Order: sequence, then structure tokens, then C-alpha cells
Amino acid sequence: MPKENITPRDKDYSQWYLDIIKAADLADYAEVVRGCIVFKPNGYAIWEGIQKGLDERIKETGHVNAYFPLLIPKSFITKEADHVEGFAPELFEISKVGGDILADPYVIRPTSETIIGHFYAQWINSWRDLPLLINQWANVMRCEKRTRPFLRTAEFLWQEGHTVHATEEEAEKETLMILNDVYTDFLEKEMAVPVIRGRKTEKEKFAGALRTYTIEAMMQDGRSLQAGTSHNLGQNFAKAFDITYLDKDNTLKHAWTTSWGVTTRLIGALIMAHSDDEGLIIPPRLAPIQIIVVPIFKNDAERAIVLEAAARLTAGWKGKVRFKIDDRDHVSPGFKYNEWETRGVPIRVEIGPRDIEKNTVAVARRDTPGKAGKAFVSQEGLLEHLTALLENIQSALFERALKFRADHTFDVTDMTELKTAVDQGFARAYWAGTTEDEDRLQAELKASVRAIPFDQPEKSGKCIVTGAETTQQVILARAY
Amino acid sequence: MPKENITPRDKDYSQWYLDIIKAADLADYAEVVRGCIVFKPNGYAIWEGIQKGLDERIKETGHVNAYFPLLIPKSFITKEADHVEGFAPELFEISKVGGDILADPYVIRPTSETIIGHFYAQWINSWRDLPLLINQWANVMRCEKRTRPFLRTAEFLWQEGHTVHATEEEAEKETLMILNDVYTDFLEKEMAVPVIRGRKTEKEKFAGALRTYTIEAMMQDGRSLQAGTSHNLGQNFAKAFDITYLDKDNTLKHAWTTSWGVTTRLIGALIMAHSDDEGLIIPPRLAPIQIIVVPIFKNDAERAIVLEAAARLTAGWKGKVRFKIDDRDHVSPGFKYNEWETRGVPIRVEIGPRDIEKNTVAVARRDTPGKAGKAFVSQEGLLEHLTALLENIQSALFERALKFRADHTFDVTDMTELKTAVDQGFARAYWAGTTEDEDRLQAELKASVRAIPFDQPEKSGKCIVTGAETTQQVILARAY
Repeated sequence: MPKENITPRDKDYSQWYLDIIKAADLADYAEVVRGCIVFKPNGYAIWEGIQKGLDERIKETGHVNAYFPLLIPKSFITKEADHVEGFAPELFEISKVGGDILADPYVIRPTSETIIGHFYAQWINSWRDLPLLINQWANVMRCEKRTRPFLRTAEFLWQEGHTVHATEEEAEKETLMILNDVYTDFLEKEMAVPVIRGRKTEKEKFAGALRTYTIEAMMQDGRSLQAGTSHNLGQNFAKAFDITYLDKDNTLKHAWTTSWGVTTRLIGALIMAHSDDEGLIIPPRLAPIQIIVVPIFKNDAERAIVLEAAARLTAGWKGKVRFKIDDRDHVSPGFKYNEWETRGVPIRVEIGPRDIEKNTVAVARRDTPGKAGKAFVSQEGLLEHLTALLENIQSALFERALKFRADHTFDVTDMTELKTAVDQGFARAYWAGTTEDEDRLQAELKASVRAIPFDQPEKSGKCIVTGAETTQQVILARAY
Repeated sequence: MPKENITPRDKDYSQWYLDIIKAADLADYAEVVRGCIVFKPNGYAIWEGIQKGLDERIKETGHVNAYFPLLIPKSFITKEADHVEGFAPELFEISKVGGDILADPYVIRPTSETIIGHFYAQWINSWRDLPLLINQWANVMRCEKRTRPFLRTAEFLWQEGHTVHATEEEAEKETLMILNDVYTDFLEKEMAVPVIRGRKTEKEKFAGALRTYTIEAMMQDGRSLQAGTSHNLGQNFAKAFDITYLDKDNTLKHAWTTSWGVTTRLIGALIMAHSDDEGLIIPPRLAPIQIIVVPIFKNDAERAIVLEAAARLTAGWKGKVRFKIDDRDHVSPGFKYNEWETRGVPIRVEIGPRDIEKNTVAVARRDTPGKAGKAFVSQEGLLEHLTALLENIQSALFERALKFRADHTFDVTDMTELKTAVDQGFARAYWAGTTEDEDRLQAELKASVRAIPFDQPEKSGKCIVTGAETTQQVILARAY
């Protein structure tokens, strides 16, 4: 059933996105702080799920967490030439502290390579101190002209990993391991969002990196969302901050560093990968509430019986599934259905006096709205049924997103095909173009090279812009 | 055995504290950012344990997490009269963003009552929206003249709860519930730190609060550390930010708010409550590593046998205890013992070729250094033995701290006794003094009224400063 407060996706996708955030109560605009939002409890709970899943993987792969200062001496930012060019226009500057004017101002970290590099230089002496594998969960600020909740905000939350290695090879291995074993694994298994893995072009790489790797996810409007990046920084920051180590051969060498991060924009990715015109859809593994139990009653006598049955039914659930019994008595069951549907809870269980008689409950799955997704299920073995159903929904969401991407990815060989493709989704094309060619594409089609995928064809073809024969294919798309 | 890098406590407690932080590698000074520190991985891991234990309790008592902007319009701070007076001298001010000068500057949050109050005013309409129970994990900044790692730093990490209620009674209930069920329960059960609960005097209460409640812990030098505070803000912020609700009787009323927080200074409390001249001591429930297994070997053949035995022995431990096998081969067992002792790991298990023959291991408990704390234990049922020992150590640390506090708390009736008492620990005295009396005590003895404890005597006595008969006792001490 169409909802008054949610614009249908095919009418205005951009407005639909904002409507979902409002209807599911995920965030609020902070007009009083330029470009910022409040992460409201429903939105922040999704971030907590993302943090948990990523933090486990970051630790399992040998990293530890630490915390570095929010403020960075402004002079640090200028030490790496590309870095300052990339970040200078976005800085929030502190020039007054406790009433005193600062001679050397600070900036709020837009990212922490510089301040962390400063400390790493002091901590690292010998090859025995390597690799150094540290991650930080933090807030960062970058001034943004056009903002959009979760996707692009002046302040956002993220994790930023910063590692130091003895050789380029080890740094490269780390950079790719994070992309594969941490980011891709998390997005595909927990968020049910399939990603394309690849390298960024020179134009799109991080300011100061040697190579940037990316995971790109297709949203329902066919646009690409850069969901995470992992940078091999080469020796750029090691040289700028003098991160050296005494090697086994007793010579002093510059180290190799990496950095990698994902941000609260993943909440935006989650919304735009799965949700529908009825509201938010959260994959079961990330859902703060996986099962909402709605008791149905008409009077106090029924209320007592039904709530007792709901309590009995869910008695063994704690610690096994994340559930909630909605026992409010000032709103109707229909109101509750609507509310939890809008908020994206994967499974709704309804129980009323007739269900108690029949020893059944009604089970509705959020990913399949209406009658098709609803069934009457025995109360015997209900938990097992629901646990299996949660896994089923998790896979179904992933498969649906994968099929959507396949249906909206097009091999293109000329500019006309490319334009048609990026109007609908991803374009796959042979590419031997330059940064100038990318600039032109951006200006003409508002599309960019999202990634040079790891999966490459075995034969060559003609570059879509230069006509030159090349073996390299890229994914082009409009991007968030 | 005395350690060269750790000053004994009885020689210089203050230097001992700094030495422990350095020896256990908990933090680094960030001279480049005034008054800030780096929370190094060993220190941050303790904070992660604190966060986990508190977050569970905060959620169990019905609160949810959210995240509000780091920046606050400077004009907000001035809306509550006492609040601005308390915080104005400590503010970090942002006046330039992306190169543009700001007409209305921002400050970095020193605490978030004002910005959160601004949003609550918009979110709350009716009595049905109450209570609103939100917590935030965040960084805050306050300019500090004298800083000390963990205890007082310009930037620190904390949780700040901000709740809104319909009545003063409910706000008071919340304020006390947090102090008892969240803070006291966490500190005593997880950190093994006994606390005195009480109310702050008018002089010591939070800037803008109606009443502030505190938990105070005694450190090993007899000084008090304010470990957490919970504020009933009355209607002060509700009036300043116009937080109103339509009550059941259809009239518009100002709400009642509370706020409460604990910070990374708890890491300092942990150090100073338990540690000794050998290094850090971490209570088992909070220890990132609870058991360190040190294999003993003289050559490669022994190494293979001993590491195989260690792997076999610990095969079923994952998920039950947090342990690590220290298999480094470039440092001696003695070096490892020393290192893990310094870092405060509660239990060390040693296993060498002779232990394998005898089917035993050596078990050393950190809270009892030397031979007294070491025993040979059968490999059969080792995990059960160690699990029980961890609980035993946890209780022993709490009991030791409790006894220390009892031994260093003195009932005093005149100024001479008071001076002697605060040189050694807590003084308990009848008190009917004024803020001016407190100021004088601070100037003369460097001591202050830490709390008006909930536990009060049944009979009255003479106020230590005015001589007036009163039923009110207070705890006086020097404070961190």
C-alpha cells in the first residue's frame, strides 16, 4: 500500500531517499551546524551494527584500535603536497582557545594520515616494530558544498586504518587484504550488498596515495556508491613525516604505509540498496530489531491473554534473536504493522486470540510485502522457523541486489551506448583514456570511471574514448 | 623485584603514575596538540572494555545511543547563565571553514547539553514522547591549564546521557538510577573499584545543574577521584532551550532534564586503584588479555614440543577466556614475564619441557607478585582452575581496595585532625559550612568536600568549620 509520507522511487528517487530517512526516523538535519546531521537512535543503531561487524573483522586480521587527537596542527597538512591540495579547501580551522588567539592554528582532522604519521615516526625504530597495524574509530570534518544525509555531511563517523610496513609488497598485500577480507566480506555477508572491487584511476585516487582500491555498490537508481577505499600510500607520507626503520641489514629505510576507511555513508548504501516504497528494509544480520511481535487484542481481557501468550512464545528467544514485543495499547495493530514496516524490521509476528486457539501465529516477511510474504505458522518450533527465515531473507536480499546489478550493467562500445547505459546503471567499457578524458566524461555525462575491476577480460578491445586497442576494462557510472 | 623504569609509589606517587603509563605503553603525549594525548592500543583496549560494560548497562536500563554534532554555535553556550560561566574559559573556537570567516563562530563541544537541548525542543511535543532516554559516545574538548594523561586532558572520550522527563520526581529517579545501577555497578563489579555515592555541594555541582550526584573512588595515595557524575538539571536547560510538552491535562509544560557522564579518566582510576611498583594491574573482567601463556624452551626441538603442548592445552579456550600465547623467539622467558607483569595481565601460565613431563603448568597471579602468587597446577581441568582463579583475583582486588579505603578513612572533629586525615586519605566530618568555607579549605588544605554521602549517621554532631549542630556528614579529601 503506497504511503503518503514516502514518494515512490520511480517518481523521484532522490526525494524517496529523504522520505525514507524521515519516515524511519533515522536522522535529523542540523541546520544550526552547517552541513551536519544528528544520527537519531534508529540510524545510529544501524551504525552500531556496522561498527560491530567491521571491528570484529579488523581485529581478526591482526589490527588493534587506538585514538589520536581530533586536532591537527595546520602546518602538518601541508607536508604532503598532493594531500594539502586535496584537503585545504575543506578544513575547519581553530584559531582561538580559551580566549587566546593561536599563533599556529589547528584544523579538525579531515583524515588522520598526517597526525598519525607524526607519531608513527617516533614509535618506529627497527624492522622489529613492523608491521604496525592500527585502526581508529572517529569523527572527521570536511566542509562540503552540497550535503545529503549519511552520504555527504560535513561531520561524519568512520574507521580509519593506518598501517606501516617494511616493503611495498607487504603494504600492497595489506591494502588488498582489507579490501577483500574486511570490506567486501562485511558488505556482502552482513549488509547483503554486492560490490565491484577494483583500482581507482589516477584522477579518482586519494590525495597522497600511490594506488587506491575501491568497492563500488550499485544503488537502485543505477548510480554507484563508493562504499570503502583502501590506499597504498607508497612512501609518500613516510617521507613527508620521516617514518624510517633500521632494517636487518643495518641500513635506515623509509617505511611503506597504507590507510583505509569506511564511513557512515554505508547507512545510505544500506537504504538505497534494499529499501522499497513502503519504507526501509534492513538485512537481518544488521537489523537492530530482527523480529517484531505484534499482539492483537480488542479489550483488556484479550490483551492479558495475548500478551501472556506472546511472553510464553518468546521466553527462550533472548540471546538468540533480537526481538521486541510491541505492547503499546494506544495504537492499533494496523498502525504498528505500518510503523515497523516503515522502519525495516525483517520479520513481523502477529498473534491474536484466534492464533492462540489454533496454536499458530502469522509471520510476515518485510522483503516481500503483502500477502505473498505472509504465512500462518505453527507455534511449535517457531524460533527455528524464524531463525531459518532470517537467513533466507538475508540471502534473498543479496541475490535480489546481485540480479539488479546484473540487469543494469551494460557492455558499451561507443558514446551513445555509454550515455544510455549510465542513464540506467553501470557501463563496462574498454578504456585507455587520460584524466582529461575523464574530466570530459564528467562534464558531458556526469559519469566517471568508478573502478578498474580486478576481474578483467582475456581479450582486448577498442578504448571507448581514444579508439586505441587495450586489454583494460573499466566500470563507468554516475556516482553518489 | 623493583623495576628501573618504574619509580616506587612511596617515593613519588605522581611520577609512579606517569611511569606506569609509559612502561605499560598506554598513552603518548601529543605535544603538538596542546594538552592532548594519544590513546595507544594498550590504553585504548582498556577503554573498549569500559565502553562495553557501560554500554550494556546503559541499554539494559532502557536507553538508546545517538550522535549529535561535534560543533555547537557559540551563542548556544550563553543561553544557560551558569553553564556559560562554567565553560566559557575552556572553549575551542572555530572561526574559519574552508577558507571562509564565520560570522557566528562554532565551539567544539565541551559537553552537549545545549546542542542536544536544541534538538530535544523540536522532537518533544506531547507527554507520550516522554521519557526520552538517549546516550552518546563522543569526544569533547576543554582547554585545561594543567594536564595529566587520562585524568585531565584537553580532548577526552566519554559517554554523555541526556534524558527528558515529565516530572521532577522522574528526573530525580533517573539521575539516581544511573548513579546506582549503571556507574556504581560497573565500577564495583567490573573495575573492582569501590565508590562512595553522594551528592555534590553547591560549590562542586555541574554548571547549570539543580543537583549533582557523584561517585568518588579512593586512589592509593589517599586522594579522591571523581569517577562519574549524574546531574538533575531541573528545568534550567528546558527553559533555556524551550523543551516543552503538552501534558495529559492539555497544558503546555516545561520538561525536566538530566545528564550524566563518565570519561577516559576511568583509565586513570583503574591504574591508581590497583597497580603496584611492578607495573599495571588490570582486574580480570576488564583485562584485554586475561591469561598470557609463556612457553619455555632452549632450542628449536624444545620449542616445537612446547608450542605444540601450549596449543593443545589452550585448544578449547577461545570464547571462554581472553588469552594469548607469547611465542616470540627473540626474547627470553624472563623478558616476557617482566613485560606481561608490567602490562597487568591477571594470570601468567608457564609451560616448559619439565611441565610437559609432569603434566603440570606453573600459574602466577599478577595481584600477588613473587613466589606467594605462583603454583604448579595439573593440566587436567586447567581451564576450570584458571576461570575460578580469575574470579578470585577479581574479588581479591575489590576487597583489597575496600580495605585500603577503610584503613584510610578517618572521622575527624577539628581542623588539626582534618589536616592529618587528608594527608592520608578521606576525612568524614559533620558539615554545615558554606561555599566560602569550602573555598577556604581548598586554599588552606588543598582539600574539598567530595560528597555528601547517601549513608548518613543517625545522630547529629558539630560542624567542623562552624561548630553548629548538624546531622549532615560529608567526605573531605584532596582530589584528582
